[in-house]
Amino acid sequence: MDAEVPPPGALVVLPVQGIGEVRPGDDLAGAIAAAAHLADGDVVVVTQKVVSKAEGRLVRVDPDDPEAKLRLAESEAVRVLRRRGDLVITETRHGFVCANSGVDLSNVDEGVAALLPVDPDRSARRLRDALVGRLKIAVAVVVTDTFGRAWRRGVTDVAIGCAGIAAVLDLRGTKDANGRELRATEVCVADEIAAAADLVMGKAARCPVAIVRGLSPGWWRESSVRAEVVRSPGEDLFR
Amino acid sequence: MDAEVPPPGALVVLPVQGIGEVRPGDDLAGAIAAAAHLADGDVVVVTQKVVSKAEGRLVRVDPDDPEAKLRLAESEAVRVLRRRGDLVITETRHGFVCANSGVDLSNVDEGVAALLPVDPDRSARRLRDALVGRLKIAVAVVVTDTFGRAWRRGVTDVAIGCAGIAAVLDLRGTKDANGRELRATEVCVADEIAAAADLVMGKAARCPVAIVRGLSPGWWRESSVRAEVVRSPGEDLFR
Repeated sequence: MDAEVPPPGALVVLPVQGIGEVRPGDDLAGAIAAAAHLADGDVVVVTQKVVSKAEGRLVRVDPDDPEAKLRLAESEAVRVLRRRGDLVITETRHGFVCANSGVDLSNVDEGVAALLPVDPDRSARRLRDALVGRLKIAVAVVVTDTFGRAWRRGVTDVAIGCAGIAAVLDLRGTKDANGRELRATEVCVADEIAAAADLVMGKAARCPVAIVRGLSPGWWRESSVRAEVVRSPGEDLFR
Repeated sequence: MDAEVPPPGALVVLPVQGIGEVRPGDDLAGAIAAAAHLADGDVVVVTQKVVSKAEGRLVRVDPDDPEAKLRLAESEAVRVLRRRGDLVITETRHGFVCANSGVDLSNVDEGVAALLPVDPDRSARRLRDALVGRLKIAVAVVVTDTFGRAWRRGVTDVAIGCAGIAAVLDLRGTKDANGRELRATEVCVADEIAAAADLVMGKAARCPVAIVRGLSPGWWRESSVRAEVVRSPGEDLFR
């Protein structure tokens, strides 16, 4: 277990194996607590897919209807930003801008689609509260999904909900190494945590949970992806 | 040192302390090799700032001229996408879409601005070749910068150059846990590596280098951010 304790200033990112298939109503916190060796100060990163499954955010789609997924994506959107073929870039009710409103057909049963959690920050808080209550240690939770980017190819995992750790860290007012004040340096650490976790999860393996261990205790606070990360249309230059 | 060896399937992310101030013409590979305890299979993540300094990509700017940085950003751009106040979102010669063409006044001397490397993939290859030649072990290099995102608040570190490790990992054709073929799953692992490294670097501390240890050997190959990550204007929906 020594190798799982990061040296000072370092991080360890650990995949959590053995979660197994998650079904609506399952006790996800219980499954995570049983499969992971959680320590005080750990950030538990959980992919949207298992959160959505546990919360029953699954709907039937006709696998023979090529338009079914598109209609579902539109019904989950408050705005369609762009269309190309069977891809729509939408703004979801949460304010996320992503492909197909986050509706996902992979790693679910044939004829079923997984929708995003209704309130992923709340999902993260519930999971965090359940883990803390069960284990009596301080842990934070980040719920992630896989999003594309406007100007960069390839997808990366980002945070869609969080509890117990800063989503955006405000470094304005701190000084750089030359004593000059840093401007406009608000770092979305929740997204960086999501990305780090994805490096150990893989996409095809059934590993929907990872632990990020060793993050600064100064980052621990109540937080919300919706309040801190979602850019409002008013300050958005590209909607 | 045991704690620096990740358990199977896990990652360790280590900050590299003691690089010190980097000046034009400095031997950056030598400084990294001296400060870091590199092991076979490590990915060395280096921020753009020290690469630009070592390569002499520094220009004078009049600190009393509020427009000087803006003019410099425009001169580094092939296209200005948006303007708001003293911020411009530009497309750089490399094809990156970012704020102010990556021109940066933090962590450099007063009256000096750091420009992006001319060819960050080449910078990464040179660093990798120098480290491999000196240490006789296989390492990969990712050069990073800090970019904003169209629809999400807060910045994250992304890859602007890489050598020796996949920038985008193509998982199309692989199967999900239900045996269904994954579609459109090209993961930009170079950006996820950059994000993971930033979690240990901090923005104000002088820690411009980190090591990501434990990545899959299957990801090692020749690569390029420009070829794999930069989205061409033709396939871009938001330019």
